[in-house]
Amino acid sequence: MITVYGMAMSGNCYKLRLLLEQLGRDYRWVEVDSARGETRTAEFLAKNPNGKVPLVELEDGRVLVESNAILCWLAEGTGYLPSDAWQKAQALSWMFFEQYSHEPYIAVARFIRGWTPADSPRRADLPRLRERGHQALAVMERHLGESGWFSGPAYGIADVALFAYTHCAADGGFDLAAYPHIDAWLARVRGTPGFVPMPDLDDEAKARLALVD
Amino acid sequence: MITVYGMAMSGNCYKLRLLLEQLGRDYRWVEVDSARGETRTAEFLAKNPNGKVPLVELEDGRVLVESNAILCWLAEGTGYLPSDAWQKAQALSWMFFEQYSHEPYIAVARFIRGWTPADSPRRADLPRLRERGHQALAVMERHLGESGWFSGPAYGIADVALFAYTHCAADGGFDLAAYPHIDAWLARVRGTPGFVPMPDLDDEAKARLALVD
Repeated sequence: MITVYGMAMSGNCYKLRLLLEQLGRDYRWVEVDSARGETRTAEFLAKNPNGKVPLVELEDGRVLVESNAILCWLAEGTGYLPSDAWQKAQALSWMFFEQYSHEPYIAVARFIRGWTPADSPRRADLPRLRERGHQALAVMERHLGESGWFSGPAYGIADVALFAYTHCAADGGFDLAAYPHIDAWLARVRGTPGFVPMPDLDDEAKARLALVD
Repeated sequence: MITVYGMAMSGNCYKLRLLLEQLGRDYRWVEVDSARGETRTAEFLAKNPNGKVPLVELEDGRVLVESNAILCWLAEGTGYLPSDAWQKAQALSWMFFEQYSHEPYIAVARFIRGWTPADSPRRADLPRLRERGHQALAVMERHLGESGWFSGPAYGIADVALFAYTHCAADGGFDLAAYPHIDAWLARVRGTPGFVPMPDLDDEAKARLALVD
Protein backbone atom coordinates (compact mmCIF):
# COMPACT_ATOMS: atom_id res chain seq x y z
CA MET A 1 0.00 0.00 0.00
CA ILE A 2 1.23 3.51 -0.74
CA THR A 3 1.67 6.17 1.93
CA VAL A 4 0.73 9.79 1.22
CA TYR A 5 2.43 12.47 3.29
CA GLY A 6 0.16 15.47 3.07
CA MET A 7 -1.54 18.40 4.76
CA ALA A 8 -5.31 17.86 4.70
CA MET A 9 -6.17 21.53 4.12
CA SER A 10 -3.70 21.91 1.20
CA GLY A 11 -5.24 21.82 -2.25
CA ASN A 12 -2.10 20.21 -3.70
CA CYS A 13 -2.53 17.35 -1.21
CA TYR A 14 -6.30 17.15 -1.67
CA LYS A 15 -5.68 16.42 -5.38
CA LEU A 16 -4.24 13.03 -4.40
CA ARG A 17 -6.97 12.23 -1.89
CA LEU A 18 -9.65 12.98 -4.49
CA LEU A 19 -8.10 10.83 -7.22
CA LEU A 20 -7.21 7.97 -4.86
CA GLU A 21 -10.81 7.88 -3.60
CA GLN A 22 -12.18 7.97 -7.14
CA LEU A 23 -9.81 5.18 -8.18
CA GLY A 24 -10.84 3.15 -5.12
CA ARG A 25 -7.17 2.73 -4.20
CA ASP A 26 -6.08 1.87 -0.66
CA TYR A 27 -3.63 4.31 0.87
CA ARG A 28 -2.28 5.42 4.21
CA TRP A 29 -2.36 9.19 4.95
CA VAL A 30 0.31 10.74 7.19
CA GLU A 31 -0.63 14.29 8.16
CA VAL A 32 2.29 16.76 7.82
CA ASP A 33 1.61 20.36 8.83
CA SER A 34 3.75 22.40 6.45
CA ALA A 35 2.40 25.64 7.96
CA ARG A 36 4.12 24.63 11.23
CA GLY A 37 7.44 23.69 9.66
CA GLU A 38 6.94 19.93 9.55
CA THR A 39 8.21 19.77 5.94
CA ARG A 40 11.48 21.40 7.04
CA THR A 41 12.61 18.78 9.57
CA ALA A 42 15.74 16.74 8.82
CA GLU A 43 13.60 13.59 8.65
CA PHE A 44 11.24 15.06 6.07
CA LEU A 45 14.00 16.71 4.03
CA ALA A 46 15.64 13.29 3.74
CA LYS A 47 12.51 12.17 1.87
CA ASN A 48 12.03 15.39 -0.15
CA PRO A 49 14.98 17.81 -0.23
CA ASN A 50 12.61 20.41 -1.71
CA GLY A 51 10.66 20.41 1.59
CA LYS A 52 7.15 20.15 0.19
CA VAL A 53 4.06 17.97 0.46
CA PRO A 54 2.44 15.96 -1.01
CA LEU A 55 4.84 13.05 -1.23
CA VAL A 56 4.05 9.43 -2.04
CA GLU A 57 6.14 6.65 -0.53
CA LEU A 58 6.08 3.07 -1.77
CA GLU A 59 6.51 0.11 0.57
CA ASP A 60 10.12 -0.30 -0.59
CA GLY A 61 10.89 3.31 0.42
CA ARG A 62 10.96 4.91 -3.03
CA VAL A 63 9.33 8.34 -3.11
CA LEU A 64 7.61 10.52 -5.71
CA VAL A 65 6.98 14.25 -5.24
CA GLU A 66 5.08 17.03 -7.06
CA SER A 67 1.30 16.69 -6.87
CA ASN A 68 0.67 16.74 -10.61
CA ALA A 69 3.40 14.18 -11.37
CA ILE A 70 1.83 11.92 -8.74
CA LEU A 71 -1.59 12.37 -10.39
CA CYS A 72 -0.06 11.29 -13.72
CA TRP A 73 1.48 8.22 -12.12
CA LEU A 74 -1.73 7.22 -10.34
CA ALA A 75 -3.84 7.77 -13.46
CA GLU A 76 -1.56 5.90 -15.87
CA GLY A 77 -3.63 3.31 -17.70
CA THR A 78 -6.95 4.56 -16.29
CA GLY A 79 -9.68 6.67 -17.87
CA TYR A 80 -8.54 9.69 -15.84
CA LEU A 81 -5.66 10.30 -18.29
CA PRO A 82 -6.36 10.27 -22.04
CA SER A 83 -4.41 7.61 -23.96
CA ASP A 84 -4.34 9.67 -27.15
CA ALA A 85 -0.97 11.46 -27.27
CA TRP A 86 -2.36 14.86 -28.32
CA GLN A 87 -5.16 14.82 -25.73
CA LYS A 88 -2.73 13.66 -23.04
CA ALA A 89 -0.45 16.57 -23.93
CA GLN A 90 -3.39 18.99 -23.65
CA ALA A 91 -4.20 17.61 -20.17
CA LEU A 92 -0.54 18.01 -19.18
CA SER A 93 -0.58 21.54 -20.59
CA TRP A 94 -3.41 22.48 -18.23
CA MET A 95 -1.53 20.87 -15.33
CA PHE A 96 1.56 22.98 -16.06
CA PHE A 97 -0.74 26.01 -16.42
CA GLU A 98 -2.14 25.17 -12.98
CA GLN A 99 1.27 25.08 -11.34
CA TYR A 100 2.70 28.15 -13.11
CA SER A 101 -0.19 30.55 -13.79
CA HIS A 102 -2.89 29.56 -11.26
CA GLU A 103 -1.56 28.03 -8.01
CA PRO A 104 1.10 30.72 -7.32
CA TYR A 105 -1.67 33.33 -7.22
CA ILE A 106 -4.92 31.65 -6.16
CA ALA A 107 -3.44 29.15 -3.68
CA VAL A 108 -0.87 31.58 -2.34
CA ALA A 109 -3.54 34.26 -1.73
CA ARG A 110 -5.50 31.64 0.23
CA PHE A 111 -2.40 30.67 2.21
CA ILE A 112 -1.59 34.28 3.09
CA ARG A 113 -5.17 34.96 4.22
CA GLY A 114 -5.63 31.72 6.18
CA TRP A 115 -2.21 30.79 7.49
CA THR A 116 -0.25 34.01 8.14
CA PRO A 117 -0.87 36.52 10.96
CA ALA A 118 -3.35 39.35 10.33
CA ASP A 119 -0.43 41.82 10.37
CA SER A 120 1.82 39.79 8.03
CA PRO A 121 3.71 41.98 5.54
CA ARG A 122 2.87 39.31 2.92
CA ARG A 123 -0.71 40.66 2.90
CA ALA A 124 0.64 43.56 0.84
CA ASP A 125 1.06 41.03 -2.01
CA LEU A 126 -2.67 40.26 -2.15
CA PRO A 127 -3.72 42.87 -4.78
CA ARG A 128 -1.04 41.63 -7.22
CA LEU A 129 -1.93 37.99 -6.55
CA ARG A 130 -5.63 38.73 -7.14
CA GLU A 131 -4.89 40.44 -10.45
CA ARG A 132 -2.83 37.50 -11.73
CA GLY A 133 -5.29 34.96 -10.28
CA HIS A 134 -8.18 36.58 -12.14
CA GLN A 135 -6.14 36.34 -15.36
CA ALA A 136 -5.88 32.56 -14.79
CA LEU A 137 -9.60 32.28 -14.03
CA ALA A 138 -10.39 34.17 -17.24
CA VAL A 139 -8.31 31.69 -19.25
CA MET A 140 -10.20 28.80 -17.63
CA GLU A 141 -13.58 30.48 -18.22
CA ARG A 142 -12.80 30.91 -21.90
CA HIS A 143 -11.80 27.25 -22.27
CA LEU A 144 -14.94 26.06 -20.49
CA GLY A 145 -17.06 28.09 -22.90
CA GLU A 146 -15.90 25.67 -25.59
CA SER A 147 -15.17 22.41 -23.70
CA GLY A 148 -16.69 20.56 -20.78
CA TRP A 149 -13.43 19.43 -19.20
CA PHE A 150 -9.70 20.19 -19.02
CA SER A 151 -8.56 16.56 -19.44
CA GLY A 152 -9.90 15.93 -22.93
CA PRO A 153 -13.34 14.56 -23.74
CA ALA A 154 -14.01 13.43 -20.14
CA TYR A 155 -13.25 14.32 -16.53
CA GLY A 156 -9.69 13.49 -15.55
CA ILE A 157 -6.55 14.55 -13.74
CA ALA A 158 -6.28 18.04 -15.27
CA ASP A 159 -9.75 18.68 -13.82
CA VAL A 160 -8.61 17.27 -10.46
CA ALA A 161 -5.54 19.55 -10.53
CA LEU A 162 -7.52 22.69 -11.37
CA PHE A 163 -10.47 21.90 -9.08
CA ALA A 164 -8.21 21.71 -6.02
CA TYR A 165 -7.68 25.46 -5.60
CA THR A 166 -10.40 26.84 -7.87
CA HIS A 167 -13.23 25.46 -5.71
CA CYS A 168 -11.84 27.30 -2.66
CA ALA A 169 -10.68 30.44 -4.50
CA ALA A 170 -13.02 32.48 -2.28
CA ASP A 171 -10.63 31.71 0.61
CA GLY A 172 -8.07 33.86 -1.23
CA GLY A 173 -10.62 36.62 -1.78
CA PHE A 174 -11.64 35.66 -5.33
CA ASP A 175 -15.28 36.19 -6.24
CA LEU A 176 -16.26 33.57 -8.85
CA ALA A 177 -19.60 35.25 -9.69
CA ALA A 178 -18.17 36.57 -12.97
CA TYR A 179 -17.27 33.05 -14.13
CA PRO A 180 -20.49 31.10 -14.87
CA HIS A 181 -18.71 28.39 -16.89
CA ILE A 182 -16.31 27.76 -14.00
CA ASP A 183 -19.26 27.57 -11.61
CA ALA A 184 -20.98 24.96 -13.79
CA TRP A 185 -17.74 22.97 -14.16
CA LEU A 186 -17.19 22.96 -10.37
CA ALA A 187 -20.70 21.46 -10.03
CA ARG A 188 -19.91 18.83 -12.70
CA VAL A 189 -16.70 17.84 -10.88
CA ARG A 190 -18.64 17.51 -7.60
CA GLY A 191 -21.01 15.17 -9.43
CA THR A 192 -18.35 12.73 -10.68
CA PRO A 193 -18.42 9.18 -9.27
CA GLY A 194 -16.59 8.81 -5.97
CA PHE A 195 -16.10 12.56 -5.49
CA VAL A 196 -14.99 13.56 -1.98
CA PRO A 197 -14.80 17.17 -0.76
CA MET A 198 -11.66 18.73 0.71
CA PRO A 199 -11.48 18.18 4.49
CA ASP A 200 -12.78 21.04 6.66
CA LEU A 201 -10.45 23.83 7.69
CA ASP A 202 -9.42 24.03 11.32
CA ASP A 203 -10.88 26.79 13.52
CA GLU A 204 -7.73 28.92 13.38
CA ALA A 205 -7.71 29.06 9.57
CA LYS A 206 -11.49 29.63 9.50
CA ALA A 207 -11.15 32.59 11.87
CA ARG A 208 -8.36 34.16 9.80
CA LEU A 209 -10.26 33.70 6.54
CA ALA A 210 -13.26 35.48 8.10
CA LEU A 211 -11.20 38.68 8.44
CA VAL A 212 -11.83 41.37 5.83
CA ASP A 213 -8.87 42.62 3.81
CA MET B 1 5.30 20.38 -40.45
CA ILE B 2 4.76 21.97 -37.05
CA THR B 3 5.23 25.69 -36.41
CA VAL B 4 6.85 26.88 -33.18
CA TYR B 5 6.03 30.39 -32.02
CA GLY B 6 8.87 31.34 -29.72
CA MET B 7 11.34 33.95 -28.53
CA ALA B 8 14.86 32.78 -29.36
CA MET B 9 16.44 34.13 -26.16
CA SER B 10 13.80 32.53 -23.90
CA GLY B 11 14.86 29.34 -22.14
CA ASN B 12 11.32 27.98 -22.25
CA CYS B 13 11.38 28.33 -26.05
CA TYR B 14 14.95 27.03 -26.37
CA LYS B 15 13.77 23.77 -24.76
CA LEU B 16 11.72 23.02 -27.89
CA ARG B 17 14.49 24.02 -30.29
CA LEU B 18 16.95 21.75 -28.49
CA LEU B 19 14.68 18.70 -28.48
CA LEU B 20 13.46 19.23 -32.05
CA GLU B 21 17.06 19.41 -33.26
CA GLN B 22 17.99 16.30 -31.29
CA LEU B 23 14.99 14.45 -32.68
CA GLY B 24 15.88 15.59 -36.21
CA ARG B 25 12.34 16.92 -36.66
CA ASP B 26 11.51 19.55 -39.29
CA TYR B 27 9.84 22.64 -37.90
CA ARG B 28 9.14 26.25 -38.78
CA TRP B 29 10.13 28.89 -36.18
CA VAL B 30 8.13 32.13 -35.92
CA GLU B 31 9.93 34.65 -33.72
CA VAL B 32 7.62 36.37 -31.18
CA ASP B 33 9.18 39.00 -28.94
CA SER B 34 7.28 38.66 -25.67
CA ALA B 35 9.47 41.36 -24.08
CA ARG B 36 7.97 43.83 -26.60
CA GLY B 37 4.36 42.76 -26.05
CA GLU B 38 4.01 40.51 -29.10
CA THR B 39 2.32 37.79 -27.00
CA ARG B 40 -0.38 40.29 -25.96
CA THR B 41 -1.73 41.15 -29.41
CA ALA B 42 -5.31 40.10 -30.26
CA GLU B 43 -3.94 37.78 -32.94
CA PHE B 44 -1.63 35.99 -30.53
CA LEU B 45 -4.17 35.83 -27.70
CA ALA B 46 -6.55 34.09 -30.12
CA LYS B 47 -3.97 31.29 -30.30
CA ASN B 48 -3.03 31.31 -26.58
CA PRO B 49 -5.36 33.22 -24.25
CA ASN B 50 -2.65 32.92 -21.57
CA GLY B 51 -0.39 35.15 -23.69
CA LYS B 52 2.80 33.11 -23.49
CA VAL B 53 5.33 31.47 -25.77
CA PRO B 54 6.30 28.83 -26.72
CA LEU B 55 3.31 27.59 -28.66
CA VAL B 56 3.19 24.77 -31.20
CA GLU B 57 0.72 24.93 -34.08
CA LEU B 58 -0.14 21.96 -36.28
CA GLU B 59 -0.93 22.32 -39.97
CA ASP B 60 -4.66 21.96 -39.21
CA GLY B 61 -4.50 24.91 -36.80
CA ARG B 62 -4.61 23.00 -33.49
CA VAL B 63 -2.29 24.46 -30.86
CA LEU B 64 -0.45 23.18 -27.80
CA VAL B 65 1.04 25.46 -25.14
CA GLU B 66 3.29 25.09 -22.05
CA SER B 67 6.89 24.24 -22.87
CA ASN B 68 7.09 21.11 -20.73
CA ALA B 69 3.80 19.68 -22.04
CA ILE B 70 5.11 20.24 -25.57
CA LEU B 71 8.35 18.41 -24.65
CA CYS B 72 6.26 15.45 -23.42
CA TRP B 73 4.25 15.39 -26.65
CA LEU B 74 7.36 15.60 -28.85
CA ALA B 75 9.16 12.91 -26.84
CA GLU B 76 6.27 10.43 -26.70
CA GLY B 77 7.50 7.10 -27.98
CA THR B 78 11.15 8.19 -28.17
CA GLY B 79 14.08 7.47 -25.85
CA TYR B 80 13.88 11.02 -24.47
CA LEU B 81 10.94 10.00 -22.22
CA PRO B 82 11.18 6.79 -20.15
CA SER B 83 8.49 4.23 -20.98
CA ASP B 84 8.51 2.78 -17.45
CA ALA B 85 5.62 4.42 -15.55
CA TRP B 86 7.60 5.11 -12.36
CA GLN B 87 10.58 6.58 -14.20
CA LYS B 88 8.30 8.64 -16.43
CA ALA B 89 6.62 10.02 -13.29
CA GLN B 90 10.03 10.93 -11.84
CA ALA B 91 10.91 12.81 -15.05
CA LEU B 92 7.56 14.62 -14.89
CA SER B 93 8.22 15.40 -11.23
CA TRP B 94 11.44 17.21 -12.17
CA MET B 95 9.60 19.07 -14.91
CA PHE B 96 6.98 20.31 -12.44
CA PHE B 97 9.83 21.19 -10.05
CA GLU B 98 11.38 23.19 -12.88
CA GLN B 99 8.24 25.22 -13.50
CA TYR B 100 7.34 25.78 -9.83
CA SER B 101 10.58 25.92 -7.85
CA HIS B 102 13.27 26.83 -10.41
CA GLU B 103 12.02 28.90 -13.36
CA PRO B 104 10.10 31.52 -11.30
CA TYR B 105 13.39 32.42 -9.58
CA ILE B 106 16.28 31.64 -11.92
CA ALA B 107 14.59 32.60 -15.19
CA VAL B 108 12.77 35.58 -13.70
CA ALA B 109 16.02 36.97 -12.21
CA ARG B 110 17.58 36.68 -15.69
CA PHE B 111 14.57 38.41 -17.25
CA ILE B 112 14.68 41.28 -14.76
CA ARG B 113 18.41 41.80 -15.26
CA GLY B 114 18.39 41.50 -19.06
CA TRP B 115 15.02 42.78 -20.19
CA THR B 116 13.88 45.50 -17.74
CA PRO B 117 15.35 49.02 -17.44
CA ALA B 118 18.28 49.52 -15.05
CA ASP B 119 16.00 51.54 -12.75
CA SER B 120 13.12 49.04 -12.78
CA PRO B 121 11.47 48.62 -9.36
CA ARG B 122 11.43 44.87 -10.09
CA ARG B 123 15.18 44.82 -9.38
CA ALA B 124 14.28 45.02 -5.70
CA ASP B 125 13.01 41.43 -6.04
CA LEU B 126 16.44 40.08 -7.01
CA PRO B 127 17.71 39.18 -3.50
CA ARG B 128 14.58 37.10 -2.78
CA LEU B 129 14.72 35.46 -6.22
CA ARG B 130 18.39 34.59 -5.70
CA GLU B 131 17.69 33.00 -2.31
CA ARG B 132 14.91 30.81 -3.73
CA GLY B 133 16.88 30.04 -6.88
CA HIS B 134 19.83 28.81 -4.84
CA GLN B 135 17.45 26.52 -2.94
CA ALA B 136 16.43 24.97 -6.28
CA LEU B 137 20.05 24.61 -7.38
CA ALA B 138 20.88 22.88 -4.08
CA VAL B 139 18.08 20.34 -4.69
CA MET B 140 19.46 19.66 -8.17
CA GLU B 141 23.04 19.37 -6.86
CA ARG B 142 21.95 16.79 -4.31
CA HIS B 143 20.15 14.71 -6.93
CA LEU B 144 23.13 14.82 -9.28
CA GLY B 145 25.34 13.51 -6.50
CA GLU B 146 23.37 10.26 -6.78
CA SER B 147 22.19 10.18 -10.41
CA GLY B 148 23.58 11.20 -13.76
CA TRP B 149 20.35 12.56 -15.22
CA PHE B 150 16.93 13.93 -14.28
CA SER B 151 14.99 11.86 -16.83
CA GLY B 152 15.76 8.40 -15.46
CA PRO B 153 18.72 6.24 -16.53
CA ALA B 154 19.50 8.40 -19.58
CA TYR B 155 19.38 11.96 -20.87
CA GLY B 156 15.84 13.07 -21.70
CA ILE B 157 13.23 15.80 -21.52
CA ALA B 158 13.58 16.53 -17.80
CA ASP B 159 17.25 17.31 -18.52
CA VAL B 160 16.22 19.50 -21.45
CA ALA B 161 13.73 21.35 -19.23
CA LEU B 162 16.25 21.95 -16.43
CA PHE B 163 19.19 22.74 -18.73
CA ALA B 164 17.30 25.60 -20.39
CA TYR B 165 17.65 28.10 -17.55
CA THR B 166 20.34 26.43 -15.43
CA HIS B 167 23.03 26.81 -18.11
CA CYS B 168 22.43 30.57 -18.23
CA ALA B 169 21.77 31.06 -14.50
CA ALA B 170 24.74 33.46 -14.40
CA ASP B 171 22.61 35.89 -16.42
CA GLY B 172 20.38 36.16 -13.33
CA GLY B 173 23.39 36.65 -11.07
CA PHE B 174 23.75 33.04 -9.92
CA ASP B 175 27.29 31.80 -9.37
CA LEU B 176 27.36 28.04 -10.10
CA ALA B 177 30.88 27.56 -8.63
CA ALA B 178 29.41 25.93 -5.51
CA TYR B 179 27.64 23.25 -7.58
CA PRO B 180 30.24 20.90 -9.09
CA HIS B 181 27.71 18.18 -9.91
CA ILE B 182 25.56 20.69 -11.81
CA ASP B 183 28.65 21.88 -13.68
CA ALA B 184 29.50 18.31 -14.74
CA TRP B 185 25.88 17.63 -15.76
CA LEU B 186 25.80 20.81 -17.90
CA ALA B 187 28.88 19.49 -19.71
CA ARG B 188 27.24 16.07 -20.19
CA VAL B 189 24.13 17.70 -21.68
CA ARG B 190 26.30 19.76 -24.06
CA GLY B 191 27.89 16.46 -25.17
CA THR B 192 24.64 14.71 -26.11
CA PRO B 193 24.08 13.88 -29.80
CA GLY B 194 22.60 16.75 -31.79
CA PHE B 195 23.00 19.30 -28.99
CA VAL B 196 22.55 22.93 -30.10
CA PRO B 197 23.28 25.92 -27.85
CA MET B 198 20.76 28.66 -27.08
CA PRO B 199 20.90 31.45 -29.71
CA ASP B 200 23.02 34.48 -28.81
CA LEU B 201 21.51 37.35 -26.86
CA ASP B 202 20.96 40.62 -28.69
CA ASP B 203 23.22 43.59 -27.90
CA GLU B 204 20.62 45.33 -25.73
CA ALA B 205 20.20 42.32 -23.43
CA LYS B 206 23.99 41.76 -23.35
CA ALA B 207 24.56 45.37 -22.28
CA ARG B 208 21.98 45.16 -19.50
CA LEU B 209 23.35 41.87 -18.22
CA ALA B 210 26.82 43.44 -18.02
CA LEU B 211 25.56 45.91 -15.40
CA VAL B 212 26.46 45.16 -11.79
CA ASP B 213 23.64 44.85 -9.27
